[in-house]
Amino acid sequence: MDKKEDFILTPRTIYNFKPQEKIVYDAIIIGTGIAGFSAAMYAARLGLKVLVVGEMTGGKITLTESIENYPGFVSINGLKLAELIENHAKDYDIDILIDIVEKISRKKGNLYVAYTTKKRFTGKTIIIATGTIEKKLDVHGEKEFTGNGVSYCAICDATTTKNKIVAVVGGGDSAVKEANLLAKYAKKVYIINNEPKLHAEAHHLNSLDNNVQKNKIKVINSAKIISINGKSSVESITFIKNNQTSSVPVDWIFIYVGQMPKIIGKEIGIKTNKNNEIIVNVNCETNVKGAYAAGDVTSNSWKQAIIAAAQGVTAAFSAYNYITKKE
Amino acid sequence: MDKKEDFILTPRTIYNFKPQEKIVYDAIIIGTGIAGFSAAMYAARLGLKVLVVGEMTGGKITLTESIENYPGFVSINGLKLAELIENHAKDYDIDILIDIVEKISRKKGNLYVAYTTKKRFTGKTIIIATGTIEKKLDVHGEKEFTGNGVSYCAICDATTTKNKIVAVVGGGDSAVKEANLLAKYAKKVYIINNEPKLHAEAHHLNSLDNNVQKNKIKVINSAKIISINGKSSVESITFIKNNQTSSVPVDWIFIYVGQMPKIIGKEIGIKTNKNNEIIVNVNCETNVKGAYAAGDVTSNSWKQAIIAAAQGVTAAFSAYNYITKKE
Repeated sequence: MDKKEDFILTPRTIYNFKPQEKIVYDAIIIGTGIAGFSAAMYAARLGLKVLVVGEMTGGKITLTESIENYPGFVSINGLKLAELIENHAKDYDIDILIDIVEKISRKKGNLYVAYTTKKRFTGKTIIIATGTIEKKLDVHGEKEFTGNGVSYCAICDATTTKNKIVAVVGGGDSAVKEANLLAKYAKKVYIINNEPKLHAEAHHLNSLDNNVQKNKIKVINSAKIISINGKSSVESITFIKNNQTSSVPVDWIFIYVGQMPKIIGKEIGIKTNKNNEIIVNVNCETNVKGAYAAGDVTSNSWKQAIIAAAQGVTAAFSAYNYITKKE
Repeated sequence: MDKKEDFILTPRTIYNFKPQEKIVYDAIIIGTGIAGFSAAMYAARLGLKVLVVGEMTGGKITLTESIENYPGFVSINGLKLAELIENHAKDYDIDILIDIVEKISRKKGNLYVAYTTKKRFTGKTIIIATGTIEKKLDVHGEKEFTGNGVSYCAICDATTTKNKIVAVVGGGDSAVKEANLLAKYAKKVYIINNEPKLHAEAHHLNSLDNNVQKNKIKVINSAKIISINGKSSVESITFIKNNQTSSVPVDWIFIYVGQMPKIIGKEIGIKTNKNNEIIVNVNCETNVKGAYAAGDVTSNSWKQAIIAAAQGVTAAFSAYNYITKKE
């Protein structure tokens, strides 16, 4: 059982591991998070020749202090879990490239081509595991102060909020969880939620209650941020509640208002739903033959590490079945 | 990262943890394997009152020496993984009962009742995670010699095959994997496969090739066992290949010809497919409202620990959503 440990955000080793432009891969996996590396591990076990290509290793989970709901680990740092799964995949003979895939295309004979910034790779199948990025608030001051009081990553900036006043925007699991984290450092944390009540796991709400009672966190429901204000850095936020405009002095604002899928594959006709998530069935198949998707980029209802891992595995199986049946 | 360790089969602690007949549980989870305890952990995190009830803790995975494909663990003993997930669930306030659920029923107001051998429990939802049992060969001698030369669990009996001749029946992943395990102990291992070729993970087939080259394992394809022979214990097996009947002297025969789901819930109209697996959708919903299923008992194509864990989590979410919407 893993003990709860303090989080440490170390720079990841960026490395390229023999990506080959001249061969035909069995599977090109786009994404280097939980889903991507789980898919890579399984595909390699099934004897497939695999390239994993993504912007950074680890994925979004590395931005989370503590994961307590990946079965098998009572509590584990997000970065640590990402590393375990990445190393698990690297225990097999897989190729890795750290780069952005800009588009994919489909050639005659149903081969896929993935175009990165400088190279192109060919594969019999493609597994899209590109995850999501944090949604923006789209208010005055957000862009100007990003990195200077506006953040999308509590774990990255928590220690610099020591004795400061902080606002967290959002009302879901992430907002409540990260507010609890920030309350360990900041003097005061406001949660600014635009819904009438919070909608987070009971487990996180219990911790929140504790922080509210200790006067560390104050929740302001039904409030909509309209601007982030300051001179050289954030000094206050302005919001509307009950048709009244109020301002609160804050030093930092953390934005957790949801996720946007990082979509690739529309250029070959891959279908998405109204949330712009790639539609997959129970076998992680998209509507395009030989193209699969796994993890937070997909239409699965719950964005969880364990589900991303299982979807990666499922996509690898489906790719294997597709290749085996064709050959 | 877990180091590969020798397997140890220790007796599990059987315990009952305050099962309550007089309350209405939010979720009654039937099954104490990976899927059951993953569901319990998540349901408890979501604030649900949970009872887990099953025949033994750990489930089928405890019979596997080494799991190498649960993302996050390069290699882990099956029993150890089961314990980690069980302890993960027990980190939350859940009730547990070790007993057999004989049937379930549905009362007015859509409450479920689970009947164990001696007690009955009431729940708003039910999650079926009962797993599978090994299929029988159904040949002469199988029943007579079970436990006396006929086994369905290589890890249980491997050490007693030291310097003996052993047959493994089957051609899939389990058969090949367990034959490789037995080759560490036995003098000689025959794989008797009734298909023209084996169909297992490349990873397991590579180990097999190694054992075949060392003359430790011999594969006999397209062969059908017709009897297991002996006086007080197994002495030989008889099989048909190319219309010819042959006998081979063996001391042990291990049967890995597939799994049979341990079904419960047909009595309330839960639908199964032609393999007698409970049909679930991507949200682990069955055709009956408030009844969910997860893990190897379901219609999911691949029986894998990581998929069972994710399905357990998904079933817990679906149960939570169902209860929340009703209330």
